[in-house]
Amino acid sequence: MLPSWNDTPAKGAIIEFVTRVTEKGGPDFVPPVERIAVFDNDGTLWTEQPFYVQGIFAFERVRALASEHPDWGKKQPFKAVLENDMETLAAAGLHGLVELVMATHAGMTTEEFERTVKDWLATARHQKFNRAYTDLVYQPMLELLAYLRANVFRTYIVSGGGIEFVRTFSERLYGILPEQVIGSSIVTKFEVRQGRPVLVREPKMDFIDDHEGKPVGINKFLGRRPIAAFGNSDGDFQMLEWVTAGPGLRFGLIIHHDDAEREFAYDRASAAGKLDRGLDEAPKRAWTLVSMKNDWKRVFAFEKK
Amino acid sequence: MLPSWNDTPAKGAIIEFVTRVTEKGGPDFVPPVERIAVFDNDGTLWTEQPFYVQGIFAFERVRALASEHPDWGKKQPFKAVLENDMETLAAAGLHGLVELVMATHAGMTTEEFERTVKDWLATARHQKFNRAYTDLVYQPMLELLAYLRANVFRTYIVSGGGIEFVRTFSERLYGILPEQVIGSSIVTKFEVRQGRPVLVREPKMDFIDDHEGKPVGINKFLGRRPIAAFGNSDGDFQMLEWVTAGPGLRFGLIIHHDDAEREFAYDRASAAGKLDRGLDEAPKRAWTLVSMKNDWKRVFAFEKK
Repeated sequence: MLPSWNDTPAKGAIIEFVTRVTEKGGPDFVPPVERIAVFDNDGTLWTEQPFYVQGIFAFERVRALASEHPDWGKKQPFKAVLENDMETLAAAGLHGLVELVMATHAGMTTEEFERTVKDWLATARHQKFNRAYTDLVYQPMLELLAYLRANVFRTYIVSGGGIEFVRTFSERLYGILPEQVIGSSIVTKFEVRQGRPVLVREPKMDFIDDHEGKPVGINKFLGRRPIAAFGNSDGDFQMLEWVTAGPGLRFGLIIHHDDAEREFAYDRASAAGKLDRGLDEAPKRAWTLVSMKNDWKRVFAFEKK
Repeated sequence: MLPSWNDTPAKGAIIEFVTRVTEKGGPDFVPPVERIAVFDNDGTLWTEQPFYVQGIFAFERVRALASEHPDWGKKQPFKAVLENDMETLAAAGLHGLVELVMATHAGMTTEEFERTVKDWLATARHQKFNRAYTDLVYQPMLELLAYLRANVFRTYIVSGGGIEFVRTFSERLYGILPEQVIGSSIVTKFEVRQGRPVLVREPKMDFIDDHEGKPVGINKFLGRRPIAAFGNSDGDFQMLEWVTAGPGLRFGLIIHHDDAEREFAYDRASAAGKLDRGLDEAPKRAWTLVSMKNDWKRVFAFEKK
C-alpha cells in the first residue's frame, strides 16, 4: 500500500483516516456517496517549477503569435515574455498572467484550444529534467489517488489553472475524468457557424478558482463539502480550511517542497506555489505536512530506484 | 422495460438508440465513459405548470419577507407578487423572476438556503393536484433514467432553475447526485464568520443556464459533449442542437405537453416552458417528439392504473 511513501507519520495519518471513514459501524464511518477528496494540481500532482506549466504554455503562445501582434513588442506583460524578462513577469503576478491567458487562450473554439494544448504538451520539455511535463507527475500522489479510489472515494482536481487546460491531460495522467476537474475559466459563448454549433472562448475571465475561489468552485461544481483536501500552497488554504471545518472526521494535507535534489525546494518566497500561512498554521489545524524529502521514497516514476 | 411508456415509435426510438450505442463491436458503440445523458428538469422531469416550482417558491418567499421590506408594496415586480397579479409577473418575464430570486434567495449561507427550500418543499402543495411538488415527477422519465443507468449512462440535470434549488431534491427524487446537477447560479462568497468558514449567497447573478447557456454550462461542468439530451421547451433547443451535432450516433428528445386531463396542455404560447421552434424543427432534426397523451401509459406514480 502506497509503496512510494516512506513509513513516516504522514503515511500513517493517511491510512488511519481512510481506515476510520471506511470502517462499517465505526464512529467515523462515511457513506461512499460522501467520500469525495479534492486535489490541487500544480505542485500537488505535478511540478510547478520553475513556473506553472500553463504559464509556460502561455509564454510560448505569445512567442508563436507575436508576428501577428506587432504591438506586443512595446506592451507589457507581452514585452517581458518576448524578452524572457522573468523578473518583470513575476512582478506582474496573477494579473499579468491572466492578461497573457486572455490574449492567447481565447478567440478559438473549445475544440481548437484542446488540440493546441495537446500538441504543445506532446513536444514541450521541462528544462531541468529534459522530459515531457506529463512525465513530471508525483508517483506517491498517483498511488494515493488509486488508494482512495479503491476505498470508493471520488477524486477531483481543484486547480487555480484553467479548467479546459487541465482537462486535456487529467484523464490520461491521473485517471480523473473531465467532469471531475474544477478550475479557473474564461467565458465561452455558444454560436452556430455554418450550421455547426460551436463553443467559442472569449477573452473575458469567468471565474478564478484560487484562494477563496476554491471552496466557491467546489460548492458550485459538487454541491457538497468534500471530506479530504490535498494541496501545497497558500492558494489551497481556504479549500483546506473549508473542507476540514465540516462535521465528522476530515483530512487536510499540505505537501512541502523541500527536496532540491529530486525536484525543487521552495515555500515562503516562491513566485509559483508560495507556502507561508499554510506552513505556520498546519500544526494547529491538525493538517498533515508532507516533506517530499523525508516522506517520499521517490518523487517521479522515472527515477532510478 | 419502460413499463409506463406505450409501445409507440417514441419508446422504440429510445430502445433502438440505447441498444445501438451499447452493442459491443457494433458500428455505433460508445464506450461507457462517454455515455452521458442530460435532462432538463422543469417540464421534463417534473411539472412546471401553472408556473416553475422555483418561481412559486420565490413568490412565497416575497410574501414571507414582505413585512421586513415595506417598499415592496410599491415596487414591481414585488407588488405584483403581493397582489397575486400573474399578468404583470408574466410580462416581467425572466428579468422579473431573476429580480425576485436575487431578493429572496440571497443574503444567507448555502446551508441556510438549503434548509429553507427543504422546509418549503415539505409543506407546499400544488393547486391542481393537491399534492407535494415532489410527487409531481414523471413516472416514465424515472423509468428512462433507470434504464439509461442500467446501460452505464451517467445522467445529469441541466436546468434553467437554480443549481442549489434543484440539488435539494435531485438525489431523493431522481437519484441524481448534487454534482450531477448543472443550473443557473448566483455568486457565492467565502467568508470566515466567528472562526467558521461559510459560503454566503450574494444578490448577483453568476450564470443563466438556459437557451445558449445550456451547452455552455454542460461544457463548463462536464468538459465533454453528452450523447443524448432530453428537454421540453425552447430553453432546451441549443442543448439538443449541440448534443445531436456531435459525431457518431446521438439522441434528442422533446416532450410535448398535450395532456390537459392528466397534466397540462401547452406549447407555443406558454409563459413557462414555451415550445415553438422545437415543435417546428424536431422532425427535420430527427429529434423524437413525445406526446404525453399518446406515448405515456401514465404520467405520475400516484395515478390509478
